[in-house]
Amino acid sequence: MSASPPSYTHEIRVSWADCDPAKIVYTARIPWFALDAINAWWEDTYGEGWFQMETDHGFGTPFVNMNIDFRAPVTPRHRLLCDVYPTRLGTTSISFRVIGRQNGTLCFEGSFTNVFVTAEAFAKSPPPADVRAHVLKYLRDDA
Amino acid sequence: MSASPPSYTHEIRVSWADCDPAKIVYTARIPWFALDAINAWWEDTYGEGWFQMETDHGFGTPFVNMNIDFRAPVTPRHRLLCDVYPTRLGTTSISFRVIGRQNGTLCFEGSFTNVFVTAEAFAKSPPPADVRAHVLKYLRDDA
Amino acid sequence: MSASPPSYTHEIRVSWADCDPAKIVYTARIPWFALDAINAWWEDTYGEGWFQMETDHGFGTPFVNMNIDFRAPVTPRHRLLCDVYPTRLGTTSISFRVIGRQNGTLCFEGSFTNVFVTAEAFAKSPPPADVRAHVLKYLRDDA
Amino acid sequence: MSASPPSYTHEIRVSWADCDPAKIVYTARIPWFALDAINAWWEDTYGEGWFQMETDHGFGTPFVNMNIDFRAPVTPRHRLLCDVYPTRLGTTSISFRVIGRQNGTLCFEGSFTNVFVTAEAFAKSPPPADVRAHVLKYLRDDA
Repeated sequence: MSASPPSYTHEIRVSWADCDPAKIVYTARIPWFALDAINAWWEDTYGEGWFQMETDHGFGTPFVNMNIDFRAPVTPRHRLLCDVYPTRLGTTSISFRVIGRQNGTLCFEGSFTNVFVTAEAFAKSPPPADVRAHVLKYLRDDA
Repeated sequence: MSASPPSYTHEIRVSWADCDPAKIVYTARIPWFALDAINAWWEDTYGEGWFQMETDHGFGTPFVNMNIDFRAPVTPRHRLLCDVYPTRLGTTSISFRVIGRQNGTLCFEGSFTNVFVTAEAFAKSPPPADVRAHVLKYLRDDA
Repeated sequence: MSASPPSYTHEIRVSWADCDPAKIVYTARIPWFALDAINAWWEDTYGEGWFQMETDHGFGTPFVNMNIDFRAPVTPRHRLLCDVYPTRLGTTSISFRVIGRQNGTLCFEGSFTNVFVTAEAFAKSPPPADVRAHVLKYLRDDA
Repeated sequence: MSASPPSYTHEIRVSWADCDPAKIVYTARIPWFALDAINAWWEDTYGEGWFQMETDHGFGTPFVNMNIDFRAPVTPRHRLLCDVYPTRLGTTSISFRVIGRQNGTLCFEGSFTNVFVTAEAFAKSPPPADVRAHVLKYLRDDA
């Protein structure tokens, strides 16, 4: 094993609309941002996001768990940079790590697990072979 | 130790607006619903929600962690009933359990930890004494 | 012409989550609330909301216009009461009026026009006869 | 009168998260997108968005009206390009036009009117002189 897996960062423009009266991003926006980042990882690295997977390719990736630590407030002062990478690939499941930073400060970090299902029957099913191969190239330790 | 702590259930009308193209509630709506349920717990049992705590009483409860297991899809077919109770009260922190059910089926369950802070300085600080006393009455094991 | 059409009011619990740093409900939440109110009108008066119409009955009601006047800020201090009624029923279109009030103060008022379409082809099509009959009972002048 | 005012286009990545079971963007997301586009216009042309205006400069721009025509569905197949420009500048008010297109198709067009207020008192007040001068450079006919 040699080369590091390629990295991926999704950038989010945080705005007034995302903030609550404490003048920071409302907590429930943060899992939303993290999911935006995972969907963008699919779109930008694999070429298809959740919409295309489901609609054009007949499979989906519903979530079974999310676990997020909130480390520092997110604000509209800086772009939110979200590092995304897969940390585990099972036969019918995949886990992601999402790490959000603003201006060098760690804001949140979370782990997310999906299962692969057929869109029609919503039944667990291994992903297409090219999805499997794609994910393996990006896999990292969840450290 | 004698009586059970009082229980609390928050009801949510799930709708078309909450669903994605898979015809089920979009994952990122579920932490939003869970937070709605925790805020409603404060409003309906203590008499003040996050807005009043921050604006009228000068303290807030930012989240430091959420951990949610998604057990079954949520749909607009039934109301979503969310049981909410505190499971731990530290000097400057509080944890909640939220359990979401539809028509008798467990849909999700999550644990949420907040810290108490002063609204102005955003610094950790024990909650007002009446908040402490209130929470103690509702405390349950996280089983 | 004799009896007044029945009235309908949808109640919304406004919360911290809905507010922006100005400590009032963020503008873009208000059309969202208004649409929640229209969907609730369908659910509570006709018995089926947009989800059931589309999924079980094969028709939808996409919007072609919304026009909203914002009269006073919406806050979490009071429930938001939204009066909803249809104001016009064409062969393949319907218009609604939504009027939002808090504690007796007019907060917003808006007009909304939908077309009836078949869910499959997304083509304009008259609504089912029972929908037509139902709407006629609730029709009011848009005054 | 000589040069055309500079144009501004805000790009939005539309995703699964924005869509409803009809597989198109949910109607209430569209005013949200339009407001994102107006805020981005302020940020990218003037250098300060609503957050900075309110927090750092003590003024806000609450909405008094929005009027949106929905011309074609918005989907995740293409980026959503929103042209934004001011169409009217009164002593204490400003109007914007937002036109959303995907892949060359007009999806929606809307008009939006804000008033300028002081952040503290929420009272109508003319904007700072540099804001006025900035807006005048971008003003166009609402044709």
